[in-house]
Amino acid sequence: MPINTVKWTRNELKLIDQTKLPDALKYIHCRDIQTVWNAIRRLSVRGAPAIGVAAAYGVLLEANHFKGKTRDELMIRVDEACSYLATARPTAVNLFYALDRMNKVFAKHPGESSVAVLKKLLKDEAMAMYEEDRRVCRQMGQHGAKFIKPHNRVMTICNAGALATVDYGTALGVMYAAHEQAVPFQVYACETRPLLQGARLTTWELRKAKIPVTVICDSMAATVMKRGLIDAVFTGADRIAANGDTANKIGTYNLAILAKHHKVPFYVVAPSSTFDLTIANGDGIPIEERHHDEVTHFRHVRVAPRGVKAFNPAFDVTEAKLITAIITERGVIVKPGRASVNKVLRYDKI
Amino acid sequence: MPINTVKWTRNELKLIDQTKLPDALKYIHCRDIQTVWNAIRRLSVRGAPAIGVAAAYGVLLEANHFKGKTRDELMIRVDEACSYLATARPTAVNLFYALDRMNKVFAKHPGESSVAVLKKLLKDEAMAMYEEDRRVCRQMGQHGAKFIKPHNRVMTICNAGALATVDYGTALGVMYAAHEQAVPFQVYACETRPLLQGARLTTWELRKAKIPVTVICDSMAATVMKRGLIDAVFTGADRIAANGDTANKIGTYNLAILAKHHKVPFYVVAPSSTFDLTIANGDGIPIEERHHDEVTHFRHVRVAPRGVKAFNPAFDVTEAKLITAIITERGVIVKPGRASVNKVLRYDKI
Repeated sequence: MPINTVKWTRNELKLIDQTKLPDALKYIHCRDIQTVWNAIRRLSVRGAPAIGVAAAYGVLLEANHFKGKTRDELMIRVDEACSYLATARPTAVNLFYALDRMNKVFAKHPGESSVAVLKKLLKDEAMAMYEEDRRVCRQMGQHGAKFIKPHNRVMTICNAGALATVDYGTALGVMYAAHEQAVPFQVYACETRPLLQGARLTTWELRKAKIPVTVICDSMAATVMKRGLIDAVFTGADRIAANGDTANKIGTYNLAILAKHHKVPFYVVAPSSTFDLTIANGDGIPIEERHHDEVTHFRHVRVAPRGVKAFNPAFDVTEAKLITAIITERGVIVKPGRASVNKVLRYDKI
Repeated sequence: MPINTVKWTRNELKLIDQTKLPDALKYIHCRDIQTVWNAIRRLSVRGAPAIGVAAAYGVLLEANHFKGKTRDELMIRVDEACSYLATARPTAVNLFYALDRMNKVFAKHPGESSVAVLKKLLKDEAMAMYEEDRRVCRQMGQHGAKFIKPHNRVMTICNAGALATVDYGTALGVMYAAHEQAVPFQVYACETRPLLQGARLTTWELRKAKIPVTVICDSMAATVMKRGLIDAVFTGADRIAANGDTANKIGTYNLAILAKHHKVPFYVVAPSSTFDLTIANGDGIPIEERHHDEVTHFRHVRVAPRGVKAFNPAFDVTEAKLITAIITERGVIVKPGRASVNKVLRYDKI
């Protein structure tokens, strides 16, 4: 059974509630924008590409609730919806990219005054992003699969799979592509504290795909590399600056330093929509800090003594110099830097 | 209230049950060697120095149960007790060091045939190790405190504190010594998956000592260092090879690589009894692998899907070249290597 993380069904958005995995496969049926905002904020839907598509549908839900008669009123309503959803989470740029595209539907059709037609155009835009996500994930898979050789052992962190996108994945998309090409390999999944997306989600979907997976604690990655058990690391991304500096789940920067120390190639897999070319380097990427309870508790069980201070940055920034290559749907950016990022991202625009 | 982790009371060994912390401060009253073995195996008592002293008392308990009349019978009984306790855990060398000392009581008193006197000598030996642990921890504290400057932020992993020794600590002993000298500083404690000794134990005892502590997930250490928040790292050790390669809690090697990358000094704090000069380098140190459930579960709550494979090495080895200095009771081994280890460890024997 394929995993469909984000799905528009009739007049509602259906999301897998990822906070319940792997214990139960439950869905959230979003019929209003508040439900979408909550789903994003509490990580029921997570992963930069999935957040982007879910947000686009969130805007569509709000537009569909619009009962007014004029283009201008609808435009204001959509703009407000975009501003609202933009507050759900700060780091993944795909959220802002998707909202921007929904907002721009009006600018792209300046003469259109029919509210019904505009609603249809908004739906088309959301559906286009949905289809694009499916397509670009498979394209990244094709570009990246060659980096997985027979009998390789590859490492990943967090979940950059079907559950982080519409249905295929970025880092895990590369693994699915290699698997479809009948390349035998196995995966070490870092559990990814504090919310354990690696232990809960990556293991769950790789097992469904029949790809062998071993879960380790994040702190074990160094010793696993030292033992020669890892041939390459593949991660997703939440926002990539113009020079290739990459924000991703906390622990990614840690892994990149370890990979460099052990001479293991380190690949980031992300669609072009994850690049934020308005930001020169990683220092400009806003890093979400989440509630301390995520650190002081473990699956709702208190771990640290009551009242202990904690620090909980949800993301870190990996400098481009630690990244062997960034795999995008437009091609592979080897030795990422301002020039190589520009060259690959723009090649289909020349 | 000072913490007394390991304590001989009348005819029993009283241990804090560290699996219950920080939720409850409960004691295990050991009246036989099996209880001691279980306490070591299930980490009710943990930390290399504490394990050593607890094992010595475990041998004493067995000797005290001896009802025979001859020296030879008692010697066999003690030897069997030592062999039995040696199977409890494989990595921390203090266990074997303590058992060896208990066994050697007979060789040191070849003419002694009184079982009562020999029992007294065994008790004296265990008590001596207890007192030595208290003394050497304070000596390490004195040697190490100078490496904590006013307003420093220091990082540690696992628990190398009062709970890992009789009552003071190795890495945390250095912090207690600085604190006693009224040096203001704060601590970042890595939570230390899988069993969370950092989040549960280190925070608990530092708060009792009124030393400010912030808990982070292990994967956050890199980003905390990158932000310039860490001035030095202090860890304990479970076994140190002749060249200074150091086995310690899983994740220590990870931290040492991060410290090097960020040019943060990395200190190991351990008594001379943690050195195993029979092992040339870290490759020879046996690394305990523990049950996979420790990774796939926490506190009986399942995290990963049922049946997922896990890998659970309890320790890793940090190469000497990543260690700025090893702080022992005999002095500080700067740039650890075979020569510098020999020089410092032997200086009181010359």
